[in-house]
Amino acid sequence: MSQFQVRTDLALETREKFEEDHVEIKGVRVEEECREESEIKITTMVIETENGAKAMGKPKGTYITLEAANLDSQDEDYHREVSVELARLIRRLLPEEKHILSVLVAGLGNREVTPDALGPRVVDNMMITRHVLKEFGKYAFGEEEVNAVSGIVPGVMAQTGMESQEIIRGVVEETKPDVMIAIDALAARSTRRLSRTIQITDTGINPGSGVGNHRHGLSEETVGVPVIAIGVPTVVDAATIVNDTMHTLIQAMEENSHLQTLSTGLNALNEMEKYELIRELLSPQLNTMFVTPKDIDESVKRLSFTISEGLNIAFA
Amino acid sequence: MSQFQVRTDLALETREKFEEDHVEIKGVRVEEECREESEIKITTMVIETENGAKAMGKPKGTYITLEAANLDSQDEDYHREVSVELARLIRRLLPEEKHILSVLVAGLGNREVTPDALGPRVVDNMMITRHVLKEFGKYAFGEEEVNAVSGIVPGVMAQTGMESQEIIRGVVEETKPDVMIAIDALAARSTRRLSRTIQITDTGINPGSGVGNHRHGLSEETVGVPVIAIGVPTVVDAATIVNDTMHTLIQAMEENSHLQTLSTGLNALNEMEKYELIRELLSPQLNTMFVTPKDIDESVKRLSFTISEGLNIAFA
Amino acid sequence: MSQFQVRTDLALETREKFEEDHVEIKGVRVEEECREESEIKITTMVIETENGAKAMGKPKGTYITLEAANLDSQDEDYHREVSVELARLIRRLLPEEKHILSVLVAGLGNREVTPDALGPRVVDNMMITRHVLKEFGKYAFGEEEVNAVSGIVPGVMAQTGMESQEIIRGVVEETKPDVMIAIDALAARSTRRLSRTIQITDTGINPGSGVGNHRHGLSEETVGVPVIAIGVPTVVDAATIVNDTMHTLIQAMEENSHLQTLSTGLNALNEMEKYELIRELLSPQLNTMFVTPKDIDESVKRLSFTISEGLNIAFA
Amino acid sequence: MSQFQVRTDLALETREKFEEDHVEIKGVRVEEECREESEIKITTMVIETENGAKAMGKPKGTYITLEAANLDSQDEDYHREVSVELARLIRRLLPEEKHILSVLVAGLGNREVTPDALGPRVVDNMMITRHVLKEFGKYAFGEEEVNAVSGIVPGVMAQTGMESQEIIRGVVEETKPDVMIAIDALAARSTRRLSRTIQITDTGINPGSGVGNHRHGLSEETVGVPVIAIGVPTVVDAATIVNDTMHTLIQAMEENSHLQTLSTGLNALNEMEKYELIRELLSPQLNTMFVTPKDIDESVKRLSFTISEGLNIAFA
Repeated sequence: MSQFQVRTDLALETREKFEEDHVEIKGVRVEEECREESEIKITTMVIETENGAKAMGKPKGTYITLEAANLDSQDEDYHREVSVELARLIRRLLPEEKHILSVLVAGLGNREVTPDALGPRVVDNMMITRHVLKEFGKYAFGEEEVNAVSGIVPGVMAQTGMESQEIIRGVVEETKPDVMIAIDALAARSTRRLSRTIQITDTGINPGSGVGNHRHGLSEETVGVPVIAIGVPTVVDAATIVNDTMHTLIQAMEENSHLQTLSTGLNALNEMEKYELIRELLSPQLNTMFVTPKDIDESVKRLSFTISEGLNIAFA
Repeated sequence: MSQFQVRTDLALETREKFEEDHVEIKGVRVEEECREESEIKITTMVIETENGAKAMGKPKGTYITLEAANLDSQDEDYHREVSVELARLIRRLLPEEKHILSVLVAGLGNREVTPDALGPRVVDNMMITRHVLKEFGKYAFGEEEVNAVSGIVPGVMAQTGMESQEIIRGVVEETKPDVMIAIDALAARSTRRLSRTIQITDTGINPGSGVGNHRHGLSEETVGVPVIAIGVPTVVDAATIVNDTMHTLIQAMEENSHLQTLSTGLNALNEMEKYELIRELLSPQLNTMFVTPKDIDESVKRLSFTISEGLNIAFA
Repeated sequence: MSQFQVRTDLALETREKFEEDHVEIKGVRVEEECREESEIKITTMVIETENGAKAMGKPKGTYITLEAANLDSQDEDYHREVSVELARLIRRLLPEEKHILSVLVAGLGNREVTPDALGPRVVDNMMITRHVLKEFGKYAFGEEEVNAVSGIVPGVMAQTGMESQEIIRGVVEETKPDVMIAIDALAARSTRRLSRTIQITDTGINPGSGVGNHRHGLSEETVGVPVIAIGVPTVVDAATIVNDTMHTLIQAMEENSHLQTLSTGLNALNEMEKYELIRELLSPQLNTMFVTPKDIDESVKRLSFTISEGLNIAFA
Repeated sequence: MSQFQVRTDLALETREKFEEDHVEIKGVRVEEECREESEIKITTMVIETENGAKAMGKPKGTYITLEAANLDSQDEDYHREVSVELARLIRRLLPEEKHILSVLVAGLGNREVTPDALGPRVVDNMMITRHVLKEFGKYAFGEEEVNAVSGIVPGVMAQTGMESQEIIRGVVEETKPDVMIAIDALAARSTRRLSRTIQITDTGINPGSGVGNHRHGLSEETVGVPVIAIGVPTVVDAATIVNDTMHTLIQAMEENSHLQTLSTGLNALNEMEKYELIRELLSPQLNTMFVTPKDIDESVKRLSFTISEGLNIAFA
């Protein structure tokens, strides 16, 4: 029952769920760093085995999570600090063999739906250099080494009639970047994480992830070049929030001392019966709905600057 | 317990709640019309007495609700039909004494948050005539009678530092329209109503209503001219959806035959205890969150045309 | 001297220039139709020979120009009439062999520069069907024949670092449409044509054309599928307007009776000397500037609806 | 003849014109400062007498012009330097009597027309504080003195049917700020100045100025509080550029040695005849057109940040 309807795009939350349920997962290595002054916490999770991948429901690879309690504040200096940290983490995941890179930054999601506009807005703010480099060479920048940065906003299927994957495969085929960075807004399990967490992974974009549930993934396998994905949770699935609440209610009933009779009754239900009970109550409409904060416009605006700045630093 | 956290900006839903709870309300008169061919249902509710207003939690006046099952479809002819119906309903609420009107259309809400962008987008699509009329007279339009239509998008407090009410009072004071139309996105109780219902009322905008919870209302009393409000629900408050789900769960437990022991247990709780139980579980964060459909961008785009067209017909 | 700095993307204006200069062009066939009621004039020009193409400075093929004096008016019925006419002309240029088509509509130009935003805005308003057709089949539309319409807004080089051609080639390669429609804002020679003329051609997009001077063209040769281009002039090159004015001034001096001495002097200059005189005066900055009407936002908004409606009718 | 059709919103250019024509103006005091490292030049012009005002065609008051050759560059540190300088100049023009100020920033112009979008975009980027201050007091900011900053984007007449002046007067009347800052895109005489000059003046907005030619001015007299206007030229009037070119052509003919006969002929024309000649050639359509650079979107984006940053510093 534990995974029913509980969707999260954050590897960190998947792992937390296991811990809540006191289940141990093998094949997953975790390290934590804390920047005390800036209250930034970085968790690196490496899914090392196929068993680990199966248990986590996510492909093998590295998932770095940057949690910053004040990411939602207006303090520009703080955001600059996060950008610098982000640049460092992105560089850590870049393929090492090449020195000068050509990078395609893809801003996934729907520009017209505020919590899903993060990707497009990051690309809006990027320093794009590929065309200048192609025409004038690196001396146009007065530097010895310049990365060729290009950007694409593929839009969503209702706008284009095409999968993001189709558009991006075509563009990669034609322009042959060394690496692709995919920016996307994510769904979390907990409202507390919204706009406060950045996930960076070298596994690309999973099918079904993102605010709009991408139908097809973006990874080295499907796109042809390594894909680093950067995501920020901006929504919780409506079904998830409702499901979680009901679990909490049932749990509260079971634990609450002045509800002993109830407790007895609920204990009589097995997991499958509880599952059926909740399933009946969950309106199918909820599957096409999400929960998001009222001031999501400000968070997305700020975060798109923080992330584009991180990318600009990483590839400058 | 019944009204705890259940917020709706639709008078229709407030009344339904009473019916669900088998409570009779006095001082409220209701009439229904159906357009069978177009599956449009129009409910006119008149709150006639102070007692009715108190019970309903809404000011005295007329609340017309247009429900159109297919309002979410792409069929342009259908939307045209709704616009014509809407024009008729708006004209029904206009003050009668004047013949040629000057109208200020205010598009409330936050243009940057998709489900709250309805008001601003309606004004974007309006046929604005006041300046032409002022400069060239009605003969510029080749017609005997032309209404002077002006439009304002006041924005939200985080953008302007001012209440919508302050901006609109100033503009009304300066330009002295005969009547004001306020367009706003609303919160419903039920997800089924989203983007499918239009409410038209001569009571203006209530404090606390709207996606962004306007702090101050807009009515003849506060603005100085009659205010007709047109609203479409585009969100459900996150707290409402969670609360409603929990009620449904408790109800299901009480009714479900193979949960008899539970039923006994729950019956042992009085209303206040149930209230406390839910209150404990409701995260305070939910109060600043809303639930909205993933394709809300398309609904808002379409509805803003349907409503602006209705206004254009009403004031042509 | 006659063609110096006089740039136009309209085949019609190139031909007019020849007529002004009393030069006959061979290999170009012209036909005119007039819709009297609607004051729509349609000119079909077919460049039939390589010599004709060389003289015109445009590739062999068909150039249809729709001139509508009232295209700038707000009359919706009139725009609907133009859309129907446009649909007819588009269908005339479609390759005949196939019955059910898959069509990729590319909105060229820069969404952030008002007179260059026509292409992106047309795609915003298109009825996109490819994804629905792929998932549910034509029965989702309740019709026997449905065209698969997809859309792309490739952006401009400063935003993406890539040529529009690169992006479009990739997308075409990946999704294999039968035909591509490219929408673009054009440069005219005369301010009188702005927002009043639509050019439809089966020759695609020429290098150097468009408000932003596309570096690479889009044609069957470079893209791999037939390309029909639809363009509306929204700017005049600043260099063109200044050059034209100087020509007119010199001409006026030559013709003006009370300027006889001048006339003698100017006649003493040969064409090359006049060319040099103008060349010296033309600031190089002008080459990166354009002239556009102050109300271009309203024209582009209206025209994008008229053209997308024409496409929706053509492919419905 | 010298002032015919030559329109500029920059006091600096008006004065240059006088210098070109070797005309001395009385009642105007000028001071220049240069920041050598940053290549910023600041010219302070004070129109001290009514005669000076009449000659200049601009009201009495202080006009500060900041010229920065690299204002069009992407260098963020450079823009920060300009913002700091700008903040200093704004503070210099603020009324001195008050210590803690409430400021209304009005972003004039048309958001939908790229070179006219400067004002609206500056307000988008402003740090708005009035509502927080009103609700939580200055302690919310952890500082002893906080200015109350509010912002308004009044739109243009075609969108609202109202004059900017009407909307702003209403808002000022209702919210009573101590001072108003009006941001506006301007018309220059020379293309070389576009996006490279910032004018700050305590005389407010003149009627007829701005990209869209405001019909009514905004000044202490009409609005009721002191108005500081900040403007950047983003367009040249099409009529101005054509007129200027013709003057240059005539001048070149008069001066060019191998055009001696011409020279004689032109000398025979008096100023009035030249005026008539040009007037005949100037198409009336040009009065509704402007000239602007193709990359104006990038300039406006950058400048709106530089100016909003300057204001944020000035009022922090």
